[in-house]
Amino acid sequence: MELNTIEWKGNKLVLLDQTALPNKVSYIDMTTVEEVWQAIHSMIVRGAPAIGVTAAYGAYIAVQYFDGSVEEAKYELKKQLDYLATSRPTAVNLFWALERMGKVAELFSGNDLVEFQERLLNEAIVIHMEDIKINRNIGEHLLTLLEDGQGVLTHCNAGALATTKYGTATSPFYLAKEKGMSLKVFADETRPRFQGAMLTSFELYHAGIDVTLITDNMAATVMSQNKVQAVIVGCDRVAANGDVANKIGTLGVAILAKHYGIPFYVATPTPTIDLNCATGTGIPIEERSKDEVLKPTGQYIAPPEVKVYNPAFDVTPAHLITAIVTEKGIIHSPNEEKLRAVFK
Amino acid sequence: MELNTIEWKGNKLVLLDQTALPNKVSYIDMTTVEEVWQAIHSMIVRGAPAIGVTAAYGAYIAVQYFDGSVEEAKYELKKQLDYLATSRPTAVNLFWALERMGKVAELFSGNDLVEFQERLLNEAIVIHMEDIKINRNIGEHLLTLLEDGQGVLTHCNAGALATTKYGTATSPFYLAKEKGMSLKVFADETRPRFQGAMLTSFELYHAGIDVTLITDNMAATVMSQNKVQAVIVGCDRVAANGDVANKIGTLGVAILAKHYGIPFYVATPTPTIDLNCATGTGIPIEERSKDEVLKPTGQYIAPPEVKVYNPAFDVTPAHLITAIVTEKGIIHSPNEEKLRAVFK
Repeated sequence: MELNTIEWKGNKLVLLDQTALPNKVSYIDMTTVEEVWQAIHSMIVRGAPAIGVTAAYGAYIAVQYFDGSVEEAKYELKKQLDYLATSRPTAVNLFWALERMGKVAELFSGNDLVEFQERLLNEAIVIHMEDIKINRNIGEHLLTLLEDGQGVLTHCNAGALATTKYGTATSPFYLAKEKGMSLKVFADETRPRFQGAMLTSFELYHAGIDVTLITDNMAATVMSQNKVQAVIVGCDRVAANGDVANKIGTLGVAILAKHYGIPFYVATPTPTIDLNCATGTGIPIEERSKDEVLKPTGQYIAPPEVKVYNPAFDVTPAHLITAIVTEKGIIHSPNEEKLRAVFK
Repeated sequence: MELNTIEWKGNKLVLLDQTALPNKVSYIDMTTVEEVWQAIHSMIVRGAPAIGVTAAYGAYIAVQYFDGSVEEAKYELKKQLDYLATSRPTAVNLFWALERMGKVAELFSGNDLVEFQERLLNEAIVIHMEDIKINRNIGEHLLTLLEDGQGVLTHCNAGALATTKYGTATSPFYLAKEKGMSLKVFADETRPRFQGAMLTSFELYHAGIDVTLITDNMAATVMSQNKVQAVIVGCDRVAANGDVANKIGTLGVAILAKHYGIPFYVATPTPTIDLNCATGTGIPIEERSKDEVLKPTGQYIAPPEVKVYNPAFDVTPAHLITAIVTEKGIIHSPNEEKLRAVFK
């Protein structure tokens, strides 16, 4: 049973309730803009691309049953876009999607309310389909780097649960299954928050993909045993020189892969490439609460007073990266010249 | 407040109750051989050296208040040694210590029961002091490899809690404190069983040693930030060629240390060197229950049906090891010739 993070079905937005994972799979219908706001706010839906798509549908829902003139509907929409923008303070995709919906409304010049509403729904669906297409393209490119029967290690969750389908790093796993190709995925549990266990192993297992969960410190062992022929991770930001910021633990996996001569691939949509950021040292690393380390699932594993270092991300230097794979293609041995060329 | 794993005090054996760690520090008096058996069996005391010393005291306790002839006491002791040997099935130090106590009884030729009892107590104390001496020597040798102010990373627990004092890998940390030298210790939490958090960070914190707890996947980051100038780990077995089996995750740390040019030291008493085992590939690796990975502290972090790979140990090849440090000295760039020389 594959999971549907976001679906537009029977004139309703249906979201997978990610706050109940991995213990319960349940879906929630979103019929009002308040429900959509709450879903984003309380992380029923999470992951930048998924939030963007949800907000786009939310914009349509804001006027889906509106009664009045197009002008009045536009006014109502503007109000609700501002409201939706307050659901999560830092999600770039959220603002981007809401702006795009606002622009569509602005450019609509007709007087037919139904037409106006349809125009908005279409735009939300286009945003949704674009996300699927980007992830699918990333997966198709990554698949050309893999062979049937190979083992692939991934870290954290750059999966379908953070997007609308396929995910980025996980995309080739879903596509391989579609094509009858067999990959063996190893998922690092990804301490301290266990996204590899709670999300990646969960979503791949539910999609019927061959996944084996390991603790982060077992990555070297599975590599030494020739169980892994490639590493694929997602990323939070790519600097202009090809350095990559991603979930803590990514750097270690990259070094191990280098040691064993295993290719290390970074999956990312092109908007994540930040040419304004010269190198990885320019990427600020968030340090999070010590409780994430001290209380893995609620119970203390060390004295509460013990010092803890808890950086949420690390930076993998470009020279450890075999290729960065985007929806537009594969950038082997990434450097500034090659990354700038992507945007030309 | 330093912790005393094992103490002989007021004619009683006093054990730190390790089953209550890290939430509670409590000590239990052992006054009968049944209590000693139970303490070893239920892991109130754990770690091969600590178990051996406890069993030695247990042998004395078996006849501490015995009333009768020396011959009768010897008979009683023999019975209780067999009984104590059933407390943990695979602990080599347990059998070794019991055998040594049995031999002392056998060789005793007098008729004075008090003298016999004293002889046994003395032997237990000697076994205890030998363990402390071995660990202290390991620590002294390791200290010559460290400098004031350095950061040292350790993995799992080769600490005072597994021995009677100092531990092996942790020994230089305690000695540095004694000598007023300042080291900054980073303790990997060591999934899946968290020995680095529950034991190492716990015991070092209680000894007033500067310790910072990190998740295993942060080791690369602290190394990349120049926070660590040496890695010290314990070990379960050293093969004749210098390959080392130790807790899962050790191999990964060794590879990271190599990448960053940081020395990687293995602390071990010489009996752990197994010249009958040619290389690390000859060391069987135990695979443990998937629940250790799936339920970090009781709660599932992934679907219970997900495949899990859970090797308890890994093998670090000799070429990644800067030196093996024993109570007898430092073996730089270990190989078969150098390891055999230790026993000549």
